[in-house]
Amino acid sequence: MDSKKPNRRGFLRDGAALAGLAAGGARVAAGQTQGQPAKKIEELIAYGERSRFVTSTRVPVVDRHSPDEFGLTFHVLTPLQDQFGIITPSSLFYTATHRGAFVPDIDPREHRLMIHGMVDRPLVFTMDELKRFPFVSRIHFVECLGNRARASHKTVMETHGLTSCAEWTGVPLSLLLKEAGVQSGASWIVAEGAEEVKGASSIPLAKAMDDCLVCYGMNGEPIRPQQGFPLRLMVPGFEGIYQIKYLRRIKVVDQYYMTYDDYGHITQDPKASALTHQIGPKSVITYPSGGQQLQGPGFYEITGLAWSGAGAIRGVEISTDGGRTWKNAQLRSPALPMAHTRFGFDWKWDGKECVLMSRCTDDLGTVQPTRADIAKYWGQPEDKVRIQGADNSVQPWRVAADGSVHNGLA
Amino acid sequence: MDSKKPNRRGFLRDGAALAGLAAGGARVAAGQTQGQPAKKIEELIAYGERSRFVTSTRVPVVDRHSPDEFGLTFHVLTPLQDQFGIITPSSLFYTATHRGAFVPDIDPREHRLMIHGMVDRPLVFTMDELKRFPFVSRIHFVECLGNRARASHKTVMETHGLTSCAEWTGVPLSLLLKEAGVQSGASWIVAEGAEEVKGASSIPLAKAMDDCLVCYGMNGEPIRPQQGFPLRLMVPGFEGIYQIKYLRRIKVVDQYYMTYDDYGHITQDPKASALTHQIGPKSVITYPSGGQQLQGPGFYEITGLAWSGAGAIRGVEISTDGGRTWKNAQLRSPALPMAHTRFGFDWKWDGKECVLMSRCTDDLGTVQPTRADIAKYWGQPEDKVRIQGADNSVQPWRVAADGSVHNGLA
Repeated sequence: MDSKKPNRRGFLRDGAALAGLAAGGARVAAGQTQGQPAKKIEELIAYGERSRFVTSTRVPVVDRHSPDEFGLTFHVLTPLQDQFGIITPSSLFYTATHRGAFVPDIDPREHRLMIHGMVDRPLVFTMDELKRFPFVSRIHFVECLGNRARASHKTVMETHGLTSCAEWTGVPLSLLLKEAGVQSGASWIVAEGAEEVKGASSIPLAKAMDDCLVCYGMNGEPIRPQQGFPLRLMVPGFEGIYQIKYLRRIKVVDQYYMTYDDYGHITQDPKASALTHQIGPKSVITYPSGGQQLQGPGFYEITGLAWSGAGAIRGVEISTDGGRTWKNAQLRSPALPMAHTRFGFDWKWDGKECVLMSRCTDDLGTVQPTRADIAKYWGQPEDKVRIQGADNSVQPWRVAADGSVHNGLA
Repeated sequence: MDSKKPNRRGFLRDGAALAGLAAGGARVAAGQTQGQPAKKIEELIAYGERSRFVTSTRVPVVDRHSPDEFGLTFHVLTPLQDQFGIITPSSLFYTATHRGAFVPDIDPREHRLMIHGMVDRPLVFTMDELKRFPFVSRIHFVECLGNRARASHKTVMETHGLTSCAEWTGVPLSLLLKEAGVQSGASWIVAEGAEEVKGASSIPLAKAMDDCLVCYGMNGEPIRPQQGFPLRLMVPGFEGIYQIKYLRRIKVVDQYYMTYDDYGHITQDPKASALTHQIGPKSVITYPSGGQQLQGPGFYEITGLAWSGAGAIRGVEISTDGGRTWKNAQLRSPALPMAHTRFGFDWKWDGKECVLMSRCTDDLGTVQPTRADIAKYWGQPEDKVRIQGADNSVQPWRVAADGSVHNGLA
């Protein structure tokens, strides 16, 4: 059979049909068209693959601001410019760690979660035991504190690629803490993962009892290794470093404990410390964005993502004149609490240079600030402002008259 | 270096560190622990993989009731018993076709969608053109008409594995039809795919103008080949055969056209024909389900999925006594229109034989029927009832005193 010109009947007669009969009658054939080499049918069936024409990948980031002699820093950016909707494919979910570049290769049968400290009954759970508890499934974003645009960044992957969003399934942490019996006087937990440096974060007990989840599921299947397999603490709306991967221990304590890589959260300035923990409200236009090219004047659909650590997104506004005027965008996906929300805006480009911006409002009514707002708050010149805590400032994209799109911070 | 006993400092000194410096400073290393062979770092970064301990796969179904001499039948079941939440991983999304076993290997640059027939302006779109239109992203289930439990089925994958749920992104079909200008007198569309037999379905124009989407995105990335890459018509709530894969042509017409594999939808019985097109309300318990094993009396979390072609799920009830009494389950995920919805129910098993059932109610107030309800409707004995149209009957799971779980229809 000439595999470059498939003939279905010939193929079935000579190959797959006989193989299928031998295998019990499942006569299936795939991947044989248009000159592609045959793939093992069983592989195509078992766990499907993307098209060979789809090649979007994550890209590692080299953080020149914190060279790490021990190779512990490992940041990989989500290609936001290629993404549709609000679910980040697990294979393209960003990963960031200062806690060891090795991805722990954990056998879930061996993994344990211990809850101890200021509790009446210290407990150790196997994965099977955790899966027998009541659970919830929620769609939440995760974002790294380091997700901040710089003038040197060219694309939206570089400016904002350290955020992703997935469906997480797990046991409410409050349930496990109630099982253990939290003692009076407790006010924080320290959650620790199983990676090389046993990275840990201190989380207020009030947040732990509110909406935190001890997760084993991500986008319908077990959490991926680079996202914490087999167990990850989800702390909705808090920055990424609190979402402890490879979760193995939760200690209930009566004070904040500083941990190995907690450099982002210690400050003597009460204004700055108020900006830690919780993300947003934040948004970014993913199309048109840096490095993309418009093909002349005409209709374009501006789109992007908005999210807030404080709740759901209530609305998004777009400016096509560098922030002078704003118009409402439409929400084009479900708007769920602490989840990426997709927006769209119909735009007719007149072919002249302009600056595109998005800003969102969350359901507390908080509006995403421009860099000018932030500079005013900190009393610094706008072009010099060094944003404290999480950077949720408005991202400008400059569209040149030739249709090329550039980082408006440059 | 001995790859079976990794020494981080040694490894970095001898290998990755130097390689990293050569590549511009990205010092990353992964997959080197616990005796695993080294993986190419670039591959781990680019498109992440699941843990080697996660092995859930789809399984092909051999349909003994419709042997197909031409090898066109290709059904692969989603392992619902392993799934968390409401998002089916794209790699595990069910696939079913009577339209050619070959998965078309389509170059999206070559693909076109034509809209013609009773329109003022016949139109042909490239993929790039379609992506410039306003779009929406919605989470919707897809279910095959053949998703029906039989007494011979052992597991929930066998009884219900021909349904899955994903986030779909695409252009509202109504927008494209308005661009083309639908002529008066038009009342149906015929949508056709590019697979071997050019499978097509007739869809009422009212549905086409309501909530249908011409989709290019699925779970955040381009639709997978087995789900219709690069373009699929999403007809929310209708059975799978309407969700035309490899969509290449939509003809606007003034009558219903019978198509190649439309055998499920032609009947002279008005009662039966009323049961076609729209799915549900339907639910199934995925744990405990057939083939699973309870480890003695005690607390168990019953969980499963509910969905309806008519809208969102309003509630789910559980019976642990074979349908005599019902108690409310909790919805444990967002309850979105025409989407799988995850439910949970806290249950203390007393160790005696019992039959578990779930039934759901959608936001029209329609309640999922038991097989007894259906038998009564059709005037047939319950053990002989042959369900017409889509089978949305309640699925019983029998828990034996030894904790083994069995199909209650057997």
